[in-house]
Parts: sequence; structure tokens; C-alpha cells
Amino acid sequence: MQYKILENNRIASKGYAMLSKDAKFTPFEFSRHAIGDNDILIKILYAGICHSDIHTARSEWGEATYPCVPGHEIAGEVIAVGKNVSKFKVGDYAGVGCMVNSCGECDACKRSQEQFCENGKTIFTYNSCDVFHGNENTYGGYSNNIVVSEKFAVCVPKDAPMEKVAPLLCAGITTYSPLKFSNIKEGSSVAVAGFGGLGMMAVKYAVKMGAKVSVFARNENKKADALAMGVSSFYTSCDKNAVKERFDLIISTIPTPYNPAIYLDLLKFGGEMAIVGLPPHEVAPSISVITFVHKAGKKVYGSLIGGIAETQEMLDFSLKHGIYPETELITPQEIDKAYENLTSGKAKFRYVIDMTKE
Amino acid sequence: MQYKILENNRIASKGYAMLSKDAKFTPFEFSRHAIGDNDILIKILYAGICHSDIHTARSEWGEATYPCVPGHEIAGEVIAVGKNVSKFKVGDYAGVGCMVNSCGECDACKRSQEQFCENGKTIFTYNSCDVFHGNENTYGGYSNNIVVSEKFAVCVPKDAPMEKVAPLLCAGITTYSPLKFSNIKEGSSVAVAGFGGLGMMAVKYAVKMGAKVSVFARNENKKADALAMGVSSFYTSCDKNAVKERFDLIISTIPTPYNPAIYLDLLKFGGEMAIVGLPPHEVAPSISVITFVHKAGKKVYGSLIGGIAETQEMLDFSLKHGIYPETELITPQEIDKAYENLTSGKAKFRYVIDMTKE
Repeated sequence: MQYKILENNRIASKGYAMLSKDAKFTPFEFSRHAIGDNDILIKILYAGICHSDIHTARSEWGEATYPCVPGHEIAGEVIAVGKNVSKFKVGDYAGVGCMVNSCGECDACKRSQEQFCENGKTIFTYNSCDVFHGNENTYGGYSNNIVVSEKFAVCVPKDAPMEKVAPLLCAGITTYSPLKFSNIKEGSSVAVAGFGGLGMMAVKYAVKMGAKVSVFARNENKKADALAMGVSSFYTSCDKNAVKERFDLIISTIPTPYNPAIYLDLLKFGGEMAIVGLPPHEVAPSISVITFVHKAGKKVYGSLIGGIAETQEMLDFSLKHGIYPETELITPQEIDKAYENLTSGKAKFRYVIDMTKE
Repeated sequence: MQYKILENNRIASKGYAMLSKDAKFTPFEFSRHAIGDNDILIKILYAGICHSDIHTARSEWGEATYPCVPGHEIAGEVIAVGKNVSKFKVGDYAGVGCMVNSCGECDACKRSQEQFCENGKTIFTYNSCDVFHGNENTYGGYSNNIVVSEKFAVCVPKDAPMEKVAPLLCAGITTYSPLKFSNIKEGSSVAVAGFGGLGMMAVKYAVKMGAKVSVFARNENKKADALAMGVSSFYTSCDKNAVKERFDLIISTIPTPYNPAIYLDLLKFGGEMAIVGLPPHEVAPSISVITFVHKAGKKVYGSLIGGIAETQEMLDFSLKHGIYPETELITPQEIDKAYENLTSGKAKFRYVIDMTKE
């Protein structure tokens, strides 16, 4: 038996938690809700570290509930299934992203945009009040297992590179979704502003969808990487006179203060700018209604992860075309160090925790 | 002969000008450029007063060139044509809106969006440097005639109510254009925020296009007017809990400070908010990139008048369906009083100057 059943059929779990906003990670034993008829129990193999984990665990985006076990980029193996489960059997691989449940009845849920559940019942993978399970706090992927409704787990083939699959479940869907929303296809013209982890994923998807892809970056450090990914132009200026191209879509992954309005000049008429990067709230830029009118016919929208059906689609697309993030494998003991490196900007790649290690 | 030819074949013109930003209107004699091979000379019958005339003439949107003859809602009769003119003959009715020329060669001009001329050569009807005619300042419709390229004049049938046609050339196209841009049709769900002159035009067009139309207004003063126009719901709150409908398109005509973000909650997923109202620059609201991400999948864009081809389309649609603004006819002597009423909010309808009067 790969898991232990506790009172009320709850499942024993071991993870790594922050006990307060200034704390370091510490081993933490807890329990997960029982495996319901539609649930699966996943033995977690890999958990990616997302920058939002840090903001949340440090209470930078509002007061977190402690102990806090972050992690919403989860890849693992199914080790038990409820009696009604049809999508998975024991031994299958599965992935869990940012959500573990939602009402399932509203229009948003019905069209599989569970992140926009109109009844406000989107349950996030960690630090979320699980109204479907007695309002208990959810614990994330920095742990050895998770119980989740099969609907909120995606199918992963057994030959997939699991440590690369984990980060796709947040970074992948975040960038894949706006490309689909803006109907990017063969011959579309796409620019990606900000060339960090999200930016690189956006570039890889857009190139594979057949778009002509340009990058806007602060400096030329990663120009060679970009060109190797199939980028046609690499700009360090977004001056409309210096940049002659005009784009169907610009995806902004920029996580620092910037002027979004200048990108509107670089869109074709009817072109769209998708915002996925989140600068710190206190320095986040805005676009004035006057700017919208003066730069008329350019549409701006935000994009927030993606629904479960689209997450499966993204995963299938990624595996089919070998699109993965650059990752660096660490042990649970190295989470604190990884957080430091991410905060100071020293991190080069996506950290993924090998949860089979202690 | 209904006009007088001066030196270099220039055309004598008489109008009403402000000589400085604080001045009152005064009769002003000047000349217009010669009638080129592709130009027509229009005897102006009616000129509408647009609120932007006031901002411009008073140098509130940047220092104006004086003498300043405003007016970009012009309806009149063709009294002379250049030798290559094919669209008009003497005796026809014609209209002129916000523009009188553009490069004609760039992509924007080629798709008849001359207001976005990529070579920066959009020549506005007044207070604009006419690079096609020796950089002379353009004079608008508060005058007895105008010379314009036939391409920038729209055809008006002889049985049209000319005093109502004039304001369509700015207020009409400003509201018609975003409805077309957002592909509004039978069964679409449209809301109009702000129920002044622009808002009423937007409502009339949207209803005629077959949309279900709602209005957001500050109070219930004009509720009966709105219902008589075919509006299905009239809201004085835009709280997302109070308003159950979700819209394909919200057109904001609001010219005062407001919170655009709350309207995003009232859009369907994939719905669009079109900004056409311009609050004073110093109090104009903005939308943060954080708001865009949190209210994901809702698109915002601005709309600025419309191109010449679409202006003709709008005029044909308006005449066919009897869609006109509410107007109040005044004499040139009453322009100053009209400006006062518009500034103090006392104006009830669109003022149109009868230019055949002194």
C-alpha cells in the first residue's frame, strides 16, 4: 500500500510548509480528505515552483492561511481511484494545475472555464477554502500526494518527461490560452514582451502554431536563445518608429513596471494585447481611456491560466511537439534557496522539486 | 454664380471665428484653396456644434490656431466640381465630417480608415495643418462654403432632412463604428453607458441592428425616452449583483470621471467594451493591468469617429431607418449662447447652425 488511511478514511500526507510569512520551509504532516467516488489519489513525483507560490506563501498577495503548503504544478502517478472514476486507473500518470474543484453547474464551468466559476466556487490547489470538503484549507504540491476530483486532473502518457510536465500546468496553460483565445494560426504575427519563463513558453507555442514571432526584451542577453527557438526579430526597443512590424497579438509577460500603451502602437488595427504578467500591485501600470481612444481599434484583455479542457489540450499539444520549459531539478531541502534565487532574479530556469526525495 | 473666385483661383468664404481662446465668435472673411480637379465646392446649409468644437476653440485640448473656425458636422449643396469629379454634380447634396484629406496610400487609407493615416497626413476639417495645400490652417463648417476632395465628402439624397444629417457626420459615425467593429447583429446584447447625445445615437443604431439594448445612466430622468427608443432595461446601478444581464458589447459614452473596471464584470466572457466618451484628460480614468488579469477574457478598446466609406454606410443606414439625433436649430448669432449652454450642461439637444442665416 503506497498510502495510509486515517480516521474517516482521510489520507495521510507529508509535505513542506511555511508556518508564517517569514518562516523557512519545514516538514509538515497533515491529512487530505477521503477519496470520494469521483476522486483519485496521486502520488506526487514532481512539483514546480511558480513565482506566485512565493507571493502567496509570504502573504504578499493578501494574508495566507498557515501552515501553507504551496505548489500548483503537480505531476505524479495515480495510486488509488474512487468507484466512479473512468478517466484514470491505478498506475496512470496525471497532472494537477491551479484548481482542484468548482461548482460544475454555472455557464463558465459548463464551458470548462472553471477558473471563472460564476458561483465563486473555484477551489485553488493551495491556500484556498474548500467549500466541497468542510471548508478545510487546501494544501498544494510540495507534498507526497494529493486527492483530487478526476475532472480536475489531466491525463499524462507514461512516456512523458514528468519533471517537465509539472510546470506546463501553470506556465504552459498561462501562455497557451491567450494564443488560442486570440485565434493565432499559420501566418499570424505575434510578439512576446518579456522573455522570462512565461515569455519563452509563449514563444515556443506561437512558433509551433505557425506564427511569425518577435520578442521584446530589456537587453540582448537571451537573443541567441530566442533566435534558436525560431524567433524572427528580437527587439530591445519598442519605439514605433524603430519597430516596423505590426502585430496581430502581443502577449505581455512583463512582471515589472512598464508602459503598456506603447505596445498599442505596435498592434495592427483590430490587433490584441493579452496581459498575463503581473507586476507588483503597487507599481502595476494602467491604460487611460484617453489612450484607448487615441490608439483606437486596438484591444486589450487579461488572461488567467485556463480551464481544465484547455489545460489537457495544451498538455497534448506540448507533448506532441516536444514543447517544455527549461527546468532545474531540486530536492525539498532546496526550496528555501530556490525562493531566494527567484526573488533576487538569480534563477535561470523553472525550479522543479523532486518529491520522491526527502 | 453662388461663389466668388479670388487671386490664384482661391474661393471667397465667410464664417464665424474665435480670434483667441477667450473670445466670442465674430464674423470672419477668409479664402479657401482653389477647387482642384478632384475637389468639390459645397455651399454649407447646416453645421452641427460638437462638444469637441468647444474644447478645441478654447485651446483646452492644446493651443489652437487663431482665427479658429470650428465645425466638422457639415451638410450642404454642391455648387462647383473639379474636372475629374465623378461622385457629385452641381446641385447634389453632400456632407463633410471630421476629415478633409489623407495620404491615400498607406494601409489605413487604403482600407478607408483615413483617421488613422499611417503617414500622419490625416487633415482634420478645422484647426489642422493642411500639408496638401501649403500648410494652411483648415477652417471648418461655421461658414458659408467649403472646398473638399470628393473622396472626403459623402453623398446625401436630396430628400434628406439636412439639419439632422449634419450631426450624423460626427455623433452618428462615432457610435455606429464600434457597433460594426464589434460585429453587433440580431440577438446581440448591447449596453450603452452614458445616455447623452452619443448614448442616444448608440441606442438607436443598436436597436435597429436587432440587438437587445440596455442603458446605464446616472438617474432615471431619461428612462421614458430610453424605453420609447426600444431599450429593454434601464439601469442606474452597474453593480454586478444588481445587474443580472451580461453583455456582448458595452459602449461607454461617459464624458465624466467613472470606474471603467466595474463594467468589465458586466461583459460576457469574450465580450468587449468600446470607449468613445472622453472625460477631461486630468480626471480620465484608467484600467490597471492587474484588473485586466483578474477580470480576464474581457476586451477593451477605444473607437475614434470612423473612415469615409463607413461614414457613407452610416449615413445610408441612418436615412433608410430614419435614425437622427434630436436637434435644435440656431442662427450664427447664437453660437456663443449655445457654447455656454453646452458648457453648463443646459443644452438638451444637438445644436445645429443654420448657415443660410446671418
